[in-house]
Amino acid sequence: MSEDVFLQELVARLEGADEAVVVPPGDDCAALALGPDLLQLLAVDQVVGDRHYHLTGEQADPPGLAGRKLLARNLSDIAAMGGTPAYALVAVALDPGHDEAWLNRFLQGIIDLGAVYNVRMIGGDLARTPADNVASLTIVGTVPRNQVCCRKGARPGDALYATGWFGASLETRHHLNFSPRCAEGRWLAASGAVTAMIDVSDGLLLDATRLCRASGLGLLLDTQAIPPRIEGLAEENMLGDGEDYELLVALDPEQAGWIEAQWPFSEVPLTRIGTFEPSQSPRVRRQADGVALDATSGGYDHFRGTPVEGVH
Amino acid sequence: MSEDVFLQELVARLEGADEAVVVPPGDDCAALALGPDLLQLLAVDQVVGDRHYHLTGEQADPPGLAGRKLLARNLSDIAAMGGTPAYALVAVALDPGHDEAWLNRFLQGIIDLGAVYNVRMIGGDLARTPADNVASLTIVGTVPRNQVCCRKGARPGDALYATGWFGASLETRHHLNFSPRCAEGRWLAASGAVTAMIDVSDGLLLDATRLCRASGLGLLLDTQAIPPRIEGLAEENMLGDGEDYELLVALDPEQAGWIEAQWPFSEVPLTRIGTFEPSQSPRVRRQADGVALDATSGGYDHFRGTPVEGVH
Repeated sequence: MSEDVFLQELVARLEGADEAVVVPPGDDCAALALGPDLLQLLAVDQVVGDRHYHLTGEQADPPGLAGRKLLARNLSDIAAMGGTPAYALVAVALDPGHDEAWLNRFLQGIIDLGAVYNVRMIGGDLARTPADNVASLTIVGTVPRNQVCCRKGARPGDALYATGWFGASLETRHHLNFSPRCAEGRWLAASGAVTAMIDVSDGLLLDATRLCRASGLGLLLDTQAIPPRIEGLAEENMLGDGEDYELLVALDPEQAGWIEAQWPFSEVPLTRIGTFEPSQSPRVRRQADGVALDATSGGYDHFRGTPVEGVH
Repeated sequence: MSEDVFLQELVARLEGADEAVVVPPGDDCAALALGPDLLQLLAVDQVVGDRHYHLTGEQADPPGLAGRKLLARNLSDIAAMGGTPAYALVAVALDPGHDEAWLNRFLQGIIDLGAVYNVRMIGGDLARTPADNVASLTIVGTVPRNQVCCRKGARPGDALYATGWFGASLETRHHLNFSPRCAEGRWLAASGAVTAMIDVSDGLLLDATRLCRASGLGLLLDTQAIPPRIEGLAEENMLGDGEDYELLVALDPEQAGWIEAQWPFSEVPLTRIGTFEPSQSPRVRRQADGVALDATSGGYDHFRGTPVEGVH
């Protein structure tokens, strides 16, 4: 069962609708109505020791970076909805090999990044495990109702843009050090030009396919336009390495030029990398030769198992 | 580090105040202002396989009961604030020894209890672990601002009441089968007679001590009045076994008689078990002989380690 199927299963088992749930499970966040003009965003994400970061051994990552990553992953989900983060609740299940000193540094990593993004901790729980170290964080944020960005909504002819760079997240330690694109997501959402948005956690190709599936479209992907995180990266790395935590955003093509010209984040590129097209299946084709790209061969689904090359 | 200290540490590291956080971390739930008259309640809790339930071996508990317990523990936190639960987000980190069939039954246990308590799943995350099975759930609810019940607020002379029965939670499987006291908590909160409330997860004595600490009081505890879950239970079991998930509620003594007379839950007793008294320390004394009861020798703190007698 993939994460996508997990959420589909959850939704399928729920009876009836709840009009207060404006965006149901399956997007980057769920959205609840806080009032006529405001939505509350909620999402949960986890980090598992020696899966999402190195907990043990000579390569062990600083615990503060592990905590930082836990919050940052959740902030990226808020960013993908065009929202502003506000509060977090954290649950830690600590393994027998790590003590309060480790925990304190882990929490400080959350709190320090929280201070940058104006996120306040409002709850927590602690447990001990037999062997593993698992932590989850629930993020709470807001977004104006008329600005919320979902995975569905892209139209044929819409342009696909990406923030930042792709690939090599593990070896560059980007997966621990990344800056969630909250300001960028808010700016895009406020522009009124966004028709769909998602953050790239499991690989550009897999997350682009999710946009296609939610919107009922195909995508022509200009793989040569994708900015590599480091020089000389192969296409498959940019498409499949994952943990980029960049935004993929579908823009009204008539407004794309204006968006590009006004883009205020000089240190983060906004690059056109594709065009949505009508399609019976959520197919991504390479623009240069029209060949279909297979999302199942690339892309990282955290639920399928540890990737061959190391920790994600 | 105990759970209490964990939360105190979190709060101590936060700079400044946020007036939207009406009840800060450290109570059963945090409370955010949703409007002038309504608060949103949020809390997170976990279950760890072979700690909070039997995951492996001949005694393995049905996975649906493990999922049920995860939601039920969170519902009990909502009950303790006088609130109504509404939404939940669940994160599961699954061990290699359990498959989708196990996961499906675990989730169904959450969904089935959610249907009884009108709780809708709005988000989820899945991961795989090297060895352990850990799940966390964040609960979201509401309470009228003028009805919210906290751990602080009890006054000298207030009467301490308890719902239900105490002790032997493990051997009776109460820790898996309990009914969170949401309706009881709401009724009490709406009565206007509550000055403080908490749910009993870590043992009557430890959680009564938390009420005392938050309210700056001592407590005379009528241990002979405590209803035992099964006949013949020793005082130490009723005080320290934990996982009772009953409510301890401080009532204005002048209204206690009216509350007892009007109590509408015929299947759940509401029993007077003590009286708050002025004290320099959050001390609980046995009413019969005035002897101080030591909360550190009884009570179950989920963070200290696996209890000797089995899974909590």
